[in-house]
Amino acid sequence: MQHTSSLAALRSLLNARDLDGMLIPRADAHQSEYSAPFDDKLAFISGFDGSAGLALILADRALLLVDGRYQVQARQQVNVDEFEIHHLHDEPVHLWMRDNLPAGKRIAFEPMLMVNSQYENLRTSGCDLVAVNDDPLNEIWSTRPAAPQGAIRQMPDAISGESSASKCARVAHALTQEGADYLALTLPDNIAWLLNVRGSDIAMSPVPLSFALVKNDGAVEWFVDSAKLQQLDSEVREAVTVQNPEDFLTRCQQLAAGKSFLLDGDNAPVAVRFAVETGGGDIKWQADPITLMKANKNETELEGYRASHVQDGAAWVNFLAWLSHEVPLREAAGNPITELEAQEKQLAFRQECDNFLEQSFGTISAAAGNAAMCHYHSAPETNAAITSNEFYLNDSGGQYFNGTTDATRTLNFGQLDGQRRLHYTAVLKGFLSLISLQFPEGTQGHQLDAFARRPLWELGLDYDHGTGHGVGHYLLIHENPHRMAKKVNPWPMVPGNILTIEPGYYLAGSHGIRIENQVEVVASQAGFCKFASLTLIPIDLSAVELPLMSEQEIAWLDEYHQHVREKLSPLVSSDARPWLFEATAPVRTQRA
Amino acid sequence: MQHTSSLAALRSLLNARDLDGMLIPRADAHQSEYSAPFDDKLAFISGFDGSAGLALILADRALLLVDGRYQVQARQQVNVDEFEIHHLHDEPVHLWMRDNLPAGKRIAFEPMLMVNSQYENLRTSGCDLVAVNDDPLNEIWSTRPAAPQGAIRQMPDAISGESSASKCARVAHALTQEGADYLALTLPDNIAWLLNVRGSDIAMSPVPLSFALVKNDGAVEWFVDSAKLQQLDSEVREAVTVQNPEDFLTRCQQLAAGKSFLLDGDNAPVAVRFAVETGGGDIKWQADPITLMKANKNETELEGYRASHVQDGAAWVNFLAWLSHEVPLREAAGNPITELEAQEKQLAFRQECDNFLEQSFGTISAAAGNAAMCHYHSAPETNAAITSNEFYLNDSGGQYFNGTTDATRTLNFGQLDGQRRLHYTAVLKGFLSLISLQFPEGTQGHQLDAFARRPLWELGLDYDHGTGHGVGHYLLIHENPHRMAKKVNPWPMVPGNILTIEPGYYLAGSHGIRIENQVEVVASQAGFCKFASLTLIPIDLSAVELPLMSEQEIAWLDEYHQHVREKLSPLVSSDARPWLFEATAPVRTQRA
Repeated sequence: MQHTSSLAALRSLLNARDLDGMLIPRADAHQSEYSAPFDDKLAFISGFDGSAGLALILADRALLLVDGRYQVQARQQVNVDEFEIHHLHDEPVHLWMRDNLPAGKRIAFEPMLMVNSQYENLRTSGCDLVAVNDDPLNEIWSTRPAAPQGAIRQMPDAISGESSASKCARVAHALTQEGADYLALTLPDNIAWLLNVRGSDIAMSPVPLSFALVKNDGAVEWFVDSAKLQQLDSEVREAVTVQNPEDFLTRCQQLAAGKSFLLDGDNAPVAVRFAVETGGGDIKWQADPITLMKANKNETELEGYRASHVQDGAAWVNFLAWLSHEVPLREAAGNPITELEAQEKQLAFRQECDNFLEQSFGTISAAAGNAAMCHYHSAPETNAAITSNEFYLNDSGGQYFNGTTDATRTLNFGQLDGQRRLHYTAVLKGFLSLISLQFPEGTQGHQLDAFARRPLWELGLDYDHGTGHGVGHYLLIHENPHRMAKKVNPWPMVPGNILTIEPGYYLAGSHGIRIENQVEVVASQAGFCKFASLTLIPIDLSAVELPLMSEQEIAWLDEYHQHVREKLSPLVSSDARPWLFEATAPVRTQRA
Repeated sequence: MQHTSSLAALRSLLNARDLDGMLIPRADAHQSEYSAPFDDKLAFISGFDGSAGLALILADRALLLVDGRYQVQARQQVNVDEFEIHHLHDEPVHLWMRDNLPAGKRIAFEPMLMVNSQYENLRTSGCDLVAVNDDPLNEIWSTRPAAPQGAIRQMPDAISGESSASKCARVAHALTQEGADYLALTLPDNIAWLLNVRGSDIAMSPVPLSFALVKNDGAVEWFVDSAKLQQLDSEVREAVTVQNPEDFLTRCQQLAAGKSFLLDGDNAPVAVRFAVETGGGDIKWQADPITLMKANKNETELEGYRASHVQDGAAWVNFLAWLSHEVPLREAAGNPITELEAQEKQLAFRQECDNFLEQSFGTISAAAGNAAMCHYHSAPETNAAITSNEFYLNDSGGQYFNGTTDATRTLNFGQLDGQRRLHYTAVLKGFLSLISLQFPEGTQGHQLDAFARRPLWELGLDYDHGTGHGVGHYLLIHENPHRMAKKVNPWPMVPGNILTIEPGYYLAGSHGIRIENQVEVVASQAGFCKFASLTLIPIDLSAVELPLMSEQEIAWLDEYHQHVREKLSPLVSSDARPWLFEATAPVRTQRA
């Protein structure tokens, strides 16, 4: 196995440094959900390439800890003679270390890759934690990809709706109010928002990997590779002090004496804490104030989202009209359309849109049982046929210069059995229950999550993922802090927040169903809010058991479809227009 | 004003002890919701007798802090020339002290009346906190009521469903699992459950005010006034070591060396922490394990609840039949029935029940605008007439030897206007939405709360209280830990939990509506639970806008009313039986 050699090399490196072991998390210095290949040390050392995990390499043992989603994948990707696979949450690594290692073992960790709460947990392990700052795996990782140097470009004020100077002044005010001198920024999407820039270090995540310090007078020091800044206007570069990313920690330490640094305990590397404390500064652990400022979109951003969804909706309709026409023909011809062919065609339709830049995440194009795997991405070896007797699920979106889109439709091209229709109807009813809700301003996501689940609960069913997440403005597809899920989310929802609503149902080996609209929170009656759909895509009603639908549900669908038709009919291709009219025809007339 | 003299007396006492001030919370050593007059130091010193509050008495100022419910009442009851009224939550006392008192001021507090988190907050105030253990107000409180000496009686195993020995063994096992040596019990309802006893120190709260220590071998030391034990069988007294309540802290200190004490940080007096730490022991801060054991009722307890609700339901029906007959007659005669007369009559009906002991809380008997005050209790000066053009709200319950009941009905005896009918219909729809829910086992209360609110939210309305609370088994009316409310409640709901479901709507000066059933959580489809009503009382449908009701809602009501009729018709008086049949007639036939 290829990883035996990396493991052996790391062990001799540890031995040479008098270390008993090393922790290798699946993390970069920004706690990115999607990180650059340069940062994927966990895959290098173990072969496991999932989106969450942690290895503990010891002289005579190696552990890989992954969560429930990845127990199967880890065993497929990893040499199990070399690695014991453990559960990331059921047996946290610090408890395993406490129970299995003699006290005082010298265990290395990279403090740029670990946040404070993780470090504090590790301190209870009884091990001697040794911070290593020199990126030791670099010595042994001969095939390491280069660090990304994606060009950074400006986000014009006309699209962001607020100048960077104004945003910096707001952050400075927040720091002053909190009695803090500096805000240490390590989240690249917050830096992107603050400086009105977008990056290209990571595909589909248009953030500039970098760090920043904001002083309580609004001055910004930006720790970014200057090679990335070639496309930026000089006034943008001159509004900040550009520094080397490698100097970030040194600068924190240098500035720290007698100063107070605001650090986000959920995201900031513990290395920043070490630097500030070594320099004689204080830390205020608190959520980065930009996270909330960024989530409360301004009217210009909202206009951008709406416009991007009109474009994206037209591309969807062109795609769905093509798909609906082709699936039965190609199936009859014995040459059915496949998942990969469908997603390529869909991308081509999106690429016809003026402001489309790239996909906002890897498309989930999943037929039949493949759709039961929530995080499925089609590949040549799994590429299934799209046929008329099974559901086809498509979850995809685009990065547009004025917004980020994310939507899911589950499609039926023929006759489905009663069980599939019942499941589809329950998912749709949950979607409608939540999306049609009026709720008090300030309500939190976990208070509303169950509305989307109730029709499934009535059948004794449920889904094992969240119901909705925040979405960035030409930024990250999963944007903090808002989320609707069973798990508590303490952030009040107010007008201007952008979320998805996406209940689903999955039956392993059989089918997967999800219906997802992106919505904005809008003001309603005094003190109340509601959701307004940004997504403009017909919802397939051919698999719905109409007798189970209430008058209010039908009315919502008819009104939505009328809106979709009015917005999109001028934009879709003439080939697609008849399909759009059919797909958005009112149910009332269909039932009458 | 009468309180001027108490205040002056306290100030000279503080002066004599070289203290700059003293904190006086509305609390007893058990953090009781309803406490004995003996413990109401806050009312003695301030005149304020609400159920939550705190005074800070300084040499030249006195503050009374109360929450939003009590801002008006406090200004009515307190001499505002002597006391400044502040908000208990908006400006916590430790922040006020930090901002308004010079550092180092010597502020007294009674550590038996304060829990650990309160104490830790106070430590950030910069004041010098002086623990006083000798009940200093006793010196100046000449009219102080005697400490309660309510007799304690046994709860037979046939009613509790589990012997005290078995419960002690379960607690011992839990302590061993946690690596703790002792559990310090300061919650009297947990002691009542553990020892299978009930007390009578406080009206309507059948708990024995006392303390206990449980060792990890199951041995119990019970710190209780032996005068309360006269009615107990000798084997109950001999199963435990009875000690003086005054010796509780000394004993904790004496046992502490090298031992670990499990303390509930939300409830245990900080005095216990001081005693354990002084004695050289460790503290494990953790929820008292009995709280959850007690909430998961056994089948015998559940049978008892069901039986007590049949009795209580019959008493309700006898009362409601009488009321429905009398209200129009007495109104026509110019001598309407009043709130106080109604609640007296209702008590008389309850007293006819075999196992009825006392009320389980002060009855809320509220007509018209009085019902808009959620915590209203009628008094001669507010005693309103019950008339046919206004709602009448009754929230009451009984302590039965085999269960505790709590229910609310809002009644209409004539013709109400459209707004009142709309509000009543919305409250009823919220009630039905929640009570008819199927949900995954382990769901938490805050995940379900919004179902009861949604029909009100649709009208831009809401209610400012929780949706449901746990209820004890012939124990406290508000039993921890389960609660359905907007606020997060981390305790999973499982079969055997007992809760109320009680949405409402209140329009100040006009009307108040609440519909409340007590329910048990029961198993349903695999992995799912539902609610089964314990309460057996017809729900008034005369104020319902039937066209707004769904078929499912009507079906639930019809099925419920049929069940009520079958259970109660053999038990109600012959006078009441025709009313019962009318009140439980199916809507379907009424609409047909």
